[in-house]
Amino acid sequence: MTEASTNGFLYEPSILDKIKLEDWPKTEFKTAISITTPGEGLKMRPLHRDDHQKGFLTNLAQLTAVGDISEKEFHDAFDKMKATPNTYYVTVIEDLNKGVIIGSATLLMEQKFIHNCGKRGRIEDVVVSDEYRGKQLGKILLTALVSLSKHLDCYKISLDCRDQMIPFYETLGFVKEPNNGNFMVIRF
Amino acid sequence: MTEASTNGFLYEPSILDKIKLEDWPKTEFKTAISITTPGEGLKMRPLHRDDHQKGFLTNLAQLTAVGDISEKEFHDAFDKMKATPNTYYVTVIEDLNKGVIIGSATLLMEQKFIHNCGKRGRIEDVVVSDEYRGKQLGKILLTALVSLSKHLDCYKISLDCRDQMIPFYETLGFVKEPNNGNFMVIRF
Ligand SMILES: CC(C)(COP(=O)(O)OP(=O)(O)OC[C@H]1O[C@@H](n2cnc3c(N)ncnc32)[C@H](O)[C@@H]1OP(=O)(O)O)[C@@H](O)C(=O)NCCC(=O)NCCS
Ligand SMILES: CC(C)(COP(=O)(O)OP(=O)(O)OC[C@H]1O[C@@H](n2cnc3c(N)ncnc32)[C@H](O)[C@@H]1OP(=O)(O)O)[C@@H](O)C(=O)NCCC(=O)NCCS
Repeated sequence: MTEASTNGFLYEPSILDKIKLEDWPKTEFKTAISITTPGEGLKMRPLHRDDHQKGFLTNLAQLTAVGDISEKEFHDAFDKMKATPNTYYVTVIEDLNKGVIIGSATLLMEQKFIHNCGKRGRIEDVVVSDEYRGKQLGKILLTALVSLSKHLDCYKISLDCRDQMIPFYETLGFVKEPNNGNFMVIRF
Repeated sequence: MTEASTNGFLYEPSILDKIKLEDWPKTEFKTAISITTPGEGLKMRPLHRDDHQKGFLTNLAQLTAVGDISEKEFHDAFDKMKATPNTYYVTVIEDLNKGVIIGSATLLMEQKFIHNCGKRGRIEDVVVSDEYRGKQLGKILLTALVSLSKHLDCYKISLDCRDQMIPFYETLGFVKEPNNGNFMVIRF
């Protein structure tokens, strides 16, 4: 058994110690911070099985409709992700003084056959709680996941977003490629 | 053990028998065909562990760079996908007379917390071999994966594509939503 399978984290926490902000130097930060300590009293870490109690879903509801998810339903989804190796890297920022999740973002990994059986990363579900916005936490969450995808050997990382978010993601080095920047959807 | 875990298919083949072209009536077909028999002598089915020998990668190389992948490397990637439950639905069309793969496309499934712990689908790596194009096979592969994602309870299915492909995907019901149709990428 790996450490993560016994300690309640969705993925191995020590992976985050191995990446550094300097691994993705495109992003500039105003103040000196680190990935695992993105601000005073703040901690970045993998999602934990107890985070339903720490307001993980309340924070997520600032992004989109979440619904009334019981702790059992949360555990079911968490356990499914954990039973799916090397795929779900749901990452949170906790305010340690309050014991509350104040930001989260997901790196989703995909195994391919193309590009020499390569791996592709995707950024999903980025949100920082409104009272904590403008403190570089969004930028540092994203920088962590971009660095993580590089560390995990992705040949590319992508995301889809609304028009108004383009400038934000450009500061992190994401580009909308000429003739290749279309996101299309069917909603059921 | 499920049937798929013993019979060499990436996912349970009987799932494809449960879906019908009529499940996604937005797409119009010129001739009467079915999902599992998309043309005379043709068969749609899950990717099989023996498909390296049937030219699966040769067909895929018409989409993008694949590289020189040995049978062992193919098996390693296949086995990783198969060890990842409910995620990889790589689907192929075989020309039964030649024993050759002539088309493929992937439905990638993602477990979420948002939308009541909902599931989201993605279309990836769609390709039909050049001598078989224009026979509705692309459309039927896509229709199968859209129907499959509905059958698997996705709240949405999406893809990203080049400008020139937009009209093709529009015929299947995909839309580029106003102010929300941006695909952004970092290539390492
Ligand atoms: C987007 C979001 C995660 C940013 O988090 P944040 O912690 O406030 O962002 P940061 O403090 O790291 O901001 C980084 C920079 O981007 C800018 N920025 C933040 N939000 C922006 C937006 N919506 N559009 C354009 N720029 C934005 C900031 O002004 C800041 O610029 P600066 O460094 O020059 O001052 C946060 O606003 C949020 O949760 N929004 C609601 C959910 C959402 O829209 N998520 C994204 C879905 S695609
Ligand atoms: C795209 C692709 C899968 C289509 O496969 P196909 O079997 O030839 O497609 P179909 O026969 O089902 O065509 C369906 C319709 O889309 C149209 N169409 C096909 N390719 C198209 C394209 N590139 N742009 C616009 N329309 C296209 C066809 O004319 C046809 O229209 P019709 O039904 O009115 O005659 C195939 O051309 C291919 O493999 N291309 C190279 C790889 C690629 O670009 N993949 C997509 C990556 S996003």
